[in-house]
This record gives sequence, C-alpha cells and structure tokens, in this order.
Amino acid sequence: MSQEIKKTDKTIMVFSGSLDHAMAAFNIAVGAASMGFKVHMFFTFWGINILKKETLSIKNKDFMGKMFTLMMANGPTRLNLSKMNMGGLGTWMMKKRMESKNISLLPELIKMAQSMDINMMACDMTKEVMGIEDDDLIDGLDVQGVAGFMDVSNQSDTTLFI
Amino acid sequence: MSQEIKKTDKTIMVFSGSLDHAMAAFNIAVGAASMGFKVHMFFTFWGINILKKETLSIKNKDFMGKMFTLMMANGPTRLNLSKMNMGGLGTWMMKKRMESKNISLLPELIKMAQSMDINMMACDMTKEVMGIEDDDLIDGLDVQGVAGFMDVSNQSDTTLFI
Amino acid sequence: MSQEIKKTDKTIMVFSGSLDHAMAAFNIAVGAASMGFKVHMFFTFWGINILKKETLSIKNKDFMGKMFTLMMANGPTRLNLSKMNMGGLGTWMMKKRMESKNISLLPELIKMAQSMDINMMACDMTKEVMGIEDDDLIDGLDVQGVAGFMDVSNQSDTTLFI
Repeated sequence: MSQEIKKTDKTIMVFSGSLDHAMAAFNIAVGAASMGFKVHMFFTFWGINILKKETLSIKNKDFMGKMFTLMMANGPTRLNLSKMNMGGLGTWMMKKRMESKNISLLPELIKMAQSMDINMMACDMTKEVMGIEDDDLIDGLDVQGVAGFMDVSNQSDTTLFI
Repeated sequence: MSQEIKKTDKTIMVFSGSLDHAMAAFNIAVGAASMGFKVHMFFTFWGINILKKETLSIKNKDFMGKMFTLMMANGPTRLNLSKMNMGGLGTWMMKKRMESKNISLLPELIKMAQSMDINMMACDMTKEVMGIEDDDLIDGLDVQGVAGFMDVSNQSDTTLFI
Repeated sequence: MSQEIKKTDKTIMVFSGSLDHAMAAFNIAVGAASMGFKVHMFFTFWGINILKKETLSIKNKDFMGKMFTLMMANGPTRLNLSKMNMGGLGTWMMKKRMESKNISLLPELIKMAQSMDINMMACDMTKEVMGIEDDDLIDGLDVQGVAGFMDVSNQSDTTLFI
C-alpha cells in the first residue's frame, strides 16, 4: 500500500541582505514555526551577510576575501534598509520606531528562529565566492548546495524567494 | 471517510512598493482570478504604499508617522520604477508606452482586482510601524498579521513573494 | 477511476535583470533539472534582458524601442550586480572570483539550461512594451502571457518569483 507524504514544510531562500528583506524572512519563518510548521531557511548571495558574526576578522582571508568582507555589511545590527536608508538615518528611524512599538528587531528574531529549531542553511557556493569561513558565521548552520535547497523545497508546500 | 482539501488558491505577498513590482503582482493576481482561481494578496512593508489614498493627510499623525508619510510615494499613480526611473522620466516613458499599447495601468489593475473579489490584506505591523491609519488606505482591505498570511498561504498551491 | 496528477514541476518567474538574480534563477533551474525535474522559466520585465542577443540592433525600432534598447543591459555578459556594482568593478571582481573557483558563469548556465530542455518563455507584454522583436532574443523561446505562466505554475509544486 503506497502512502503519499503530505508536504507541509515551509522553505525560504534568503537571497537579499537588506534589513527589510531579512526582517520579512524571519517574521514569516518565526510565524510559521510558532504555528507548528517545520521551516527551512537557505541563505545565499547577499543573504549570507545576515548570518555573519559582528566580530568578523579579515586576518586569514585572501585579497578577494578581505575585499568582500570589508565592502559588505556584517551581521544583523549593521544591515541597511533597501529603500529610504538615507545614509543610515532611515534605517535608524525604522529601528527606533519598531522598538517603541515593542516589535522584535532582527537579532531577537534570529535568536527566536534558533530556539524554535528552524533549519538554517548557508549556501556553499556563496561561502566560497565571498571567502567566508564557517567561523565567520553564527553557530548551528548547515552548509548546503542547491541540491540541499531542492531537498527541503521538495518537502515543502511553499517556497519563497526573498 | 477523510477527504483531502485540494489547494488551488494563489497567494501573493507584496513586499516591494515600486511600480514595476506592483504591476507584476496585480497582473498575476488578475490573470489568475480571471482563470477562476481564488487569489489572496498580503501587502507588507513598502508594498502597503501601493494601497494608499492619494489624498493622504498628515494632520493627525505623530512625528514618525508624518515622516514616513512624506518620504514615501503615496498611491498607485505616484510609484516609481525600481530601475531606470531617471528622476521620473523612465517611469513616465514606461506609462506612456503602456497606454499606447492599450495595456492596463496600475490604478485600473487595482480596480479590476477589487471587482474580481481578490482578497486584499494589509499587514498590521507595517501599519503600526509606518503610522498608517485605516483611513489612509483604499477601502475593502482586511488587516492581518503573519498568521493571517499563513492561513491563506496554507490554502494555496502557490505563494509568491514580490 | 479518477487519478490525481502529481505536481512536481518547478516554475521560476524571472522578473529581475541583474547578474546576481539571473545567476540565482539559473542555478536553481539547472540544479532542479539535473535532479530530474521539469523546469519552466518565464522571463518578464527586466528579466527579459537576460535573454537578449549581444549583437542587438536598433535599426528597425521605433523611438521608444530604441530608447529601451540603449538604456538597458543587453545579454548575459553585460548584466550588472544589483548591489556592489561600483561602476562595474564589483561585478568584474565577482566574475573573476567565480572563474577562479570554477563556478559556471551566466552564459554557460544558460547553455546548460537550453541543453537540459528547460522550458524558457518570454513575456509577450514585456516584449511589446520594450519594443523587443523575436530576433533580438536567443533562439528557442516560447512567447507567452500571464495565462501561459499560470498553466506551468499550476503543474508545479514550487513557483519562485526572482
């Protein structure tokens, strides 16, 4: 007797590395997880910057790795809005506003995602191109390629590209 | 006897507030609705600007609310292209071109969506952060949070993030 | 006896025309196809620039068609990154880095997609608005509207908007 596996997982490919996109991705992920769904997040391209430690060092990187590290925002507190950043003013205003409304900011959302056992994957090709070591990223990530992404997407009834 | 509910709805999370993204979202939504599918649109972050009335007042808003209102495009006729805006020239050219080809512009697409009973939802968190009142938005919207989005997404076989 | 058709195709709507978005779309598409899935790509708005021939002529175009052709990047080797382009330097660095890591660049990914029989569709409305002729685009494309997109999306368990 064959039995069909019901797909109910949710997968999010996080491609963008701006604060607004990151907050949207984590709000959806945490929301879905709190409703009981298994959630997978695959961080690729600019999205991997969201997972960088803020104490990132460039010491042991090659030239290109140093360049990519210095030119990109590192970690959740340093991301900028994709619009209305206005040299940081718009981003600062948005964060202030969220705090005053008791809305969880990005660092807190990431901690919630970790405590809810959301499956967070870092793209292997992105790590290689940008010269990012495991040590540069927060703990508990699974390093995967596009096949790893397809595997979780195939278990999901929704896959978002953010 | 158990019966599985066939998921055939379509859900679109409209996150971007640029003219090109808005037109893509509404073209897909109206296209799907005209083929007989139930369509849900959830407007969040910059996407909520698409639904603003053009006569928006800042009178009763607090400081932050006034700032967000003044700094963002209000309503479908004032949105800009995400690329090639060129101080408004590119956006103007694109609209002229569409008109000359008898392609529906955004205000018309929104009216079509409303007349086709497309379920349009405004994100409660976005409204709060940006200081947007119900009165600032077009009529007939349902105000919902991420749980409301997940509910319609769970009834859908496709969920797009635009 | 009724039989339910299992949906396993993958559909990608390619809306963005930047190098990073194009590479993400084709990496997912080629990855999914190599795992045995049928993949559909629908190129609309800026995404259609990815499919332009690099020898594009403006000779027989009207004024608007000439303008759109001259102002937009034509073909896979001329696309820029959406972030960190830095007047072309960032894009050049990224390509160099990928080459040195033996990662397939965009022109190669497109050839792989063609050889894997990935269904590539060009949006009819975009062609009309931007004044693009069949001859301006690479061979083997199917010209479709939103109904064509919905048809393949309805056969798919995943539809991404990139």
